[in-house]
Amino acid sequence: MNGQEVPMVTLPSASMDSVGHFKLLTASVVPRPIAWTSTLSRAGVRNLAPFSFYTVVSTTPPMLALTLELDSTGRPKDTQRNIEDTGEFVVNVVSADQAEQMNRTSVESPADVDEFQLTGVDSAPSLHVRAPRVAGARISMECVLHSVIRPGSDSVLIGRIEVFHVAENLLLPNGHIDVDQMEVIGRVDSRFIRVSSAFRLP
Amino acid sequence: MNGQEVPMVTLPSASMDSVGHFKLLTASVVPRPIAWTSTLSRAGVRNLAPFSFYTVVSTTPPMLALTLELDSTGRPKDTQRNIEDTGEFVVNVVSADQAEQMNRTSVESPADVDEFQLTGVDSAPSLHVRAPRVAGARISMECVLHSVIRPGSDSVLIGRIEVFHVAENLLLPNGHIDVDQMEVIGRVDSRFIRVSSAFRLP
Repeated sequence: MNGQEVPMVTLPSASMDSVGHFKLLTASVVPRPIAWTSTLSRAGVRNLAPFSFYTVVSTTPPMLALTLELDSTGRPKDTQRNIEDTGEFVVNVVSADQAEQMNRTSVESPADVDEFQLTGVDSAPSLHVRAPRVAGARISMECVLHSVIRPGSDSVLIGRIEVFHVAENLLLPNGHIDVDQMEVIGRVDSRFIRVSSAFRLP
Repeated sequence: MNGQEVPMVTLPSASMDSVGHFKLLTASVVPRPIAWTSTLSRAGVRNLAPFSFYTVVSTTPPMLALTLELDSTGRPKDTQRNIEDTGEFVVNVVSADQAEQMNRTSVESPADVDEFQLTGVDSAPSLHVRAPRVAGARISMECVLHSVIRPGSDSVLIGRIEVFHVAENLLLPNGHIDVDQMEVIGRVDSRFIRVSSAFRLP
């Protein structure tokens, strides 16, 4: 592409509404990892939901950030309320065989509905936090809430990873993980991809 | 995977050093988008570097966060210094035909070296900020620095997108972007993937 300029359209963000922003953001920031996030409400109800505005914000201690929008009624989602109430959450990695279950947990349910039960996902106990992890997830990360920031329309929840759970057969002797065997599912615009055929560049 | 538990290994993060954390984080948070980030130093030297701990932190206004580690000598990277000095940066999306150029820009160079020139990448002027964009990138997002947080070992730079540049042939009449045509490159552990075959779930 060097030496030649692609014909471009210029779109000032102030000229668009939030639907326009969302279309551009979800197509521009790709591919995205999915944080399949399990929490407990203050009353002990299990919640599970996927989010893809999500990244690493510190290596040591290991820390993750989840961006959570308001729900369709303009209130914080159950996940956010649970994390703020309990100070805990678990981020589970989604493999291909759990893709449909993960997608079912993206539907908004009343706060008193157990979303593990509703969607037929099995949970397993965590080690450090009360929130359960997803049984069958090849990697789960137990997190303790560090802080919440709100730079714009959405809340960004930052958590410190206390414990990694990794499937025994994926953990290589050198401390690396066999990612190819996980068949991780990621997000591209409002669709999904199966991560395969990773390659090295010279 | 329901009803059966995968045999797991439990790894408390306090039992590992930063190399161990990095191996687990880069394999667990996948696939990751690449923010190919162009900046100008205070002296006007062009810098270009890719980062993959990167996500959306607000829809309206549209805002991005980039996590930047210290460089190999323990100091802030040129990208961070430039953004803090000038308050501006541009995030460019990497397509397959630019993958090798992008990878060349991941090498640390002295602050006074023009990394566009060094790596043979053409720049194009931005509309709102002085930092240039990558000519040939199908999407570029001009950003103004909003804030910097440091929850752990790394700095998280949060920017507000002022202008989106989108290749004319990718912009659909309904405001969506034809992502498949972009052939975006993403990151998986320390490797890359070409984003293709996105699918919908029922």
